[in-house]
Amino acid sequence: METKLRGKTKEVVINTEGPFVIIGESINPTRRKKLVDTLSDHNFEYVLELAGKQIDAGAGILDVNVGFPGVDDLYLLPETVKAINEKYDIPLCIDSPNPEAIRAALKVADGKCIINSVTGEEKSLRSVLPVALEYGAAVIGLVMDDEGISHEPEKRLRIAEKILEQAVKTGIMENDVIIDPLVMAVSADPGAALVTLETIRLVHEKLALNITQGTSNISFGLPGRDTINSVFMAFSILNGLTCAITNPARIAAAVRAADLLRDRDDYAMRFVEYFQGGP
Amino acid sequence: METKLRGKTKEVVINTEGPFVIIGESINPTRRKKLVDTLSDHNFEYVLELAGKQIDAGAGILDVNVGFPGVDDLYLLPETVKAINEKYDIPLCIDSPNPEAIRAALKVADGKCIINSVTGEEKSLRSVLPVALEYGAAVIGLVMDDEGISHEPEKRLRIAEKILEQAVKTGIMENDVIIDPLVMAVSADPGAALVTLETIRLVHEKLALNITQGTSNISFGLPGRDTINSVFMAFSILNGLTCAITNPARIAAAVRAADLLRDRDDYAMRFVEYFQGGP
Repeated sequence: METKLRGKTKEVVINTEGPFVIIGESINPTRRKKLVDTLSDHNFEYVLELAGKQIDAGAGILDVNVGFPGVDDLYLLPETVKAINEKYDIPLCIDSPNPEAIRAALKVADGKCIINSVTGEEKSLRSVLPVALEYGAAVIGLVMDDEGISHEPEKRLRIAEKILEQAVKTGIMENDVIIDPLVMAVSADPGAALVTLETIRLVHEKLALNITQGTSNISFGLPGRDTINSVFMAFSILNGLTCAITNPARIAAAVRAADLLRDRDDYAMRFVEYFQGGP
Repeated sequence: METKLRGKTKEVVINTEGPFVIIGESINPTRRKKLVDTLSDHNFEYVLELAGKQIDAGAGILDVNVGFPGVDDLYLLPETVKAINEKYDIPLCIDSPNPEAIRAALKVADGKCIINSVTGEEKSLRSVLPVALEYGAAVIGLVMDDEGISHEPEKRLRIAEKILEQAVKTGIMENDVIIDPLVMAVSADPGAALVTLETIRLVHEKLALNITQGTSNISFGLPGRDTINSVFMAFSILNGLTCAITNPARIAAAVRAADLLRDRDDYAMRFVEYFQGGP
């Protein structure tokens, strides 16, 4: 199953049979005060620096989230998207809880984007899916619905099925739906990782769709976060994860190794290039 | 399934439902000239230093291999085992291709050891299994036979079944058989990791035995070996690996994270202890 995205000209394919794709997570004001401050001043220098660093570190797509209290991302999101598109030829993942901000951003964005995200909630399905159809965007489907977040992998699978069904009914191609199985902190619930891993396995086996996750949620509140994130990433990839919204600087090595070990890196070229000169 | 080992008094359990066990690989003369030199002089200071370091780094069991050209390990192996047993209370994994050296070592060893290894070759089965029975040792069964090493996971599974069957016929308990699915270098064969991972999955699913591996073989000849080894370890654990012969200093962090993520570390105690003070 292939989800094809595009920047101005550059195509990036998320492929259930191909190498893993990193969606850079850093353009997000949470815990990044400087981003809040500079964007509030309509100064895009810092956001462009974050974009460049993530591309250099191996991101194939960039998540763009500029939401923070007191700022209306209906205007700021499209402005930021335009600024990034002007400098970098890379597909974007438009990240907002506000469907109107997503629409405004897609209107000005180059190429083919991902919408992050639609959920199984009736209101979300009704408001987000038509925007995806209108602008030909792919969409991340978060497996929660009007009843909340389930602890049962089978229930999360059923929400994924519902999102897929509604998307297809709306006119969106099946391969433009990417499922996010939801990653919760293992510090709050010791079974959280196992629930997500089993959801990934089920979605992969039953729906064969591309699957993403916000990896670093898993290690919230714990020491050794990079180690936890890398091992959880490896577990997730083996069960069917094909892309993740994460920090490329910290996870690219593990992801390249995963491609190599799964025979998705011909002649180990990408891995060796990444590690050239090192062990 | 529980394989119970013992040093002088300390019991270590390899358990298909429990935390992962690291078998320290460092007492092995390959690429460690100092070990060759000191052991040739019957000087055990360095081997004891290697033992202590591995125990501190998280090894639950120590592999002991003293074979090198020109030295008869029929005498040196039991001497080394005695020296380790005198200083450290930890179960040992007696590693030699020579069944008589294994027998001599088991004769003097404390507690309950593992024999590394028997294969599916007729000669190996006939000579090693009776020694395991005689000294009540567990045994690692390497999935190769008189036809060599197969590239087919199903054939490797059949060799595991044959070793198990012969062991049980000899009088060895089923839970004292640990299967080694064979790890070959991914640099020599891009499909090598997938063959091993599928063998692990099959042995886990069909035989439910404990499973071990010599992890670092996977990355032979490549840069970034620690990264490859860690990701391969995570993949293997998810498929059913329960212990590994490896370098605890380099892999313990990933192993502790794997236990945490699989809800095999109550209150994240072991993980947090490992990382206390860390990032």
